[in-house]
Amino acid sequence: MQTNEPQTPYIPINFAEKFELFSERWLPKVIAELNDYQFKLARIEGEFIWHDHPDTDEAFLVIEGNLRIDFRDGCVHLAAGEMFVVPRGVEHEPVAEKEVKLMLIEPRGVTNTGRVGGERTARNDVWI
Amino acid sequence: MQTNEPQTPYIPINFAEKFELFSERWLPKVIAELNDYQFKLARIEGEFIWHDHPDTDEAFLVIEGNLRIDFRDGCVHLAAGEMFVVPRGVEHEPVAEKEVKLMLIEPRGVTNTGRVGGERTARNDVWI
Repeated sequence: MQTNEPQTPYIPINFAEKFELFSERWLPKVIAELNDYQFKLARIEGEFIWHDHPDTDEAFLVIEGNLRIDFRDGCVHLAAGEMFVVPRGVEHEPVAEKEVKLMLIEPRGVTNTGRVGGERTARNDVWI
Repeated sequence: MQTNEPQTPYIPINFAEKFELFSERWLPKVIAELNDYQFKLARIEGEFIWHDHPDTDEAFLVIEGNLRIDFRDGCVHLAAGEMFVVPRGVEHEPVAEKEVKLMLIEPRGVTNTGRVGGERTARNDVWI
């Protein structure tokens, strides 16, 4: 059916709608790119592994829930509406006692387990 | 007074608290850096000017309010919890009928008026 409505590619990216599209934990999904950076949504629960990203900072932005990021010499607590940038090369371990919905911002190609790797490494560049 | 509490630099960045620190419109404030990218908060109201950024994409993330971004061939409406990435070189004009609190993500050094410049160009790299 033809309409006179303009057909544009200008579609908002709605976080809540995107989170409804997956339920698995610890498997970040790409929702947007900004130059060679990616915005990824993740649902996490429990403890991750200690790791670092030697070549890049990594931004954590909490959408829902309460996230703790442990460092070797301290930690940061993030609630919804809060963010933190983990500097490159700094070992960290995200911990979510209950489910947390968060957004990660980092360069394309960064994996969730950094240079540690292992069985909890998620497939990269998965879009929703 | 000395305490046994650990003194760490791990401080969350709280968007609501940061927005309380300024009231002026159309003057983005930097709250964090990720490599050579910056996260900026802005309070906007009314119409901006048509402009583009020839060398970079620009991400808009709405924290509060309803934002419209006009393009030459359409527009996008963004509510709280929604984002959009304006591609490099695409002319756009942000419009906020009522006040909007938003976050911009873009490389360090990008000015709010792009290559158009003019009197509405904000001083860059102002941190809160």
